[in-house]
Amino acid sequence: MITSRENALIKKIVKLHTAAGRKKSGQYFTEGIRSVGQALEAGADIAEAVYCAKVYQLPAGRQLMDRIAWAGIKAVEVSESLYRSITDTENPQPVMAVIDMKDYRLDDILPTNGFFAVIVDGIQDPGNLGTIIRTAHAAGVHAVVLLKGTVDPYNPKTVRGTMGSIFSVPVVQESDTRRLFARLRETGVKLIAASPESRTPYWDINYRGKIAIIIGNEANGISDQVKEHSELSTVLPMPGRAESLNAAVACGILLYKALEQRLT
Amino acid sequence: MITSRENALIKKIVKLHTAAGRKKSGQYFTEGIRSVGQALEAGADIAEAVYCAKVYQLPAGRQLMDRIAWAGIKAVEVSESLYRSITDTENPQPVMAVIDMKDYRLDDILPTNGFFAVIVDGIQDPGNLGTIIRTAHAAGVHAVVLLKGTVDPYNPKTVRGTMGSIFSVPVVQESDTRRLFARLRETGVKLIAASPESRTPYWDINYRGKIAIIIGNEANGISDQVKEHSELSTVLPMPGRAESLNAAVACGILLYKALEQRLT
Repeated sequence: MITSRENALIKKIVKLHTAAGRKKSGQYFTEGIRSVGQALEAGADIAEAVYCAKVYQLPAGRQLMDRIAWAGIKAVEVSESLYRSITDTENPQPVMAVIDMKDYRLDDILPTNGFFAVIVDGIQDPGNLGTIIRTAHAAGVHAVVLLKGTVDPYNPKTVRGTMGSIFSVPVVQESDTRRLFARLRETGVKLIAASPESRTPYWDINYRGKIAIIIGNEANGISDQVKEHSELSTVLPMPGRAESLNAAVACGILLYKALEQRLT
Repeated sequence: MITSRENALIKKIVKLHTAAGRKKSGQYFTEGIRSVGQALEAGADIAEAVYCAKVYQLPAGRQLMDRIAWAGIKAVEVSESLYRSITDTENPQPVMAVIDMKDYRLDDILPTNGFFAVIVDGIQDPGNLGTIIRTAHAAGVHAVVLLKGTVDPYNPKTVRGTMGSIFSVPVVQESDTRRLFARLRETGVKLIAASPESRTPYWDINYRGKIAIIIGNEANGISDQVKEHSELSTVLPMPGRAESLNAAVACGILLYKALEQRLT
């Protein structure tokens, strides 16, 4: 049982709380019996599980530890007080998993027939991004593409918000926006941007074929650079005169309109 | 300028942080220049504004204070340290408003032609409820009805999450579920419940005429009592096999499908 903060694994997990630490190690973590179970099921690359003795007090915890052992994953016990120093939650569950990020490349996914993706341009709130990834997973997208300036998808809050979808949906982090849009255009992907300035209600758009739906920043919408590249823009009407829609809700409405057209 | 925690107004605001305190006084509060401005615009019954001197350092703050004075609303200055003890946020903005709840009755709203409402059955997360109220406002509903067991809509987190919509959308808190559904049935309101067990995709439902869309608890969905009363149930398909959709996102997708049908 590890009890020292100077232990190498503990020091690594502390670093995984920051975007820089995650980037450097190519790993992130997820907490809780349910979430670690989902990571196992989805075939995430779990480097190690970290737990404290309490996990064995819960039937679901015992079952999870059995599955971890059965999968041949290293499980490391830490003292309860040490565990509290490496958790991101206020009421921590007694188990977490350190996971290797998958390095998805758009070029591997692009050839898919009827390519269907979300492009996220500058979402700042980790919870919003988590909900967008969760919703995109539900709608059956082939990829979630994150442009520069978007919050880190491996932020613990985002990971929690995805409710396990982060382990299943290919998330592509694209730093070269110009190259990305050139590749999408080449491949015949239709780009549909949500924009309050558009006059076309989103239900008048054709979402069939290869498409990518672009969701902008919570306050400022889609950046000018991205606007130039997208051939179609569309608005979500607000007869009730609310100030705006939440970005994840707007994303859900557009993805599900696309899903409806594509399935019916 | 108030500097004492023993001041009656300060003691009242501290009590407004709890559901019991809000219920007893029939008041709630909202924080921030933008939100207090929205409350003013929407014609909310502002009992008093509370601010600290800092508000005058911001142009938008000065402008707001002018509007408050012009509206004849009592504005009370408190010391900065005292303000910090009555705010709900970590980085507080230097102004808040105490607002009288509006006592909306369903019977006043029900006769509306083409009645369109959301019924919330047991949402627990204050942020989710805030986003639902915001989305319902955008979609132009006539009322948001909250059943017993739903989180308090005047919770500071919910108020923030509505982004000002709480000042505009009639929110009805209904404690007698049986009576509510009897009244809705009498008036010819069609009840449409979101349920993962349904086999009817939500795009195959007719949302025209008088309708109410029912959204259930995050984990357990719609309660059995409410299920009995709703004549139509519908599912949001998830080809991507995500665990579930966020309740506010699911609500947005249903409300906007209804809006689309009703407007086109």
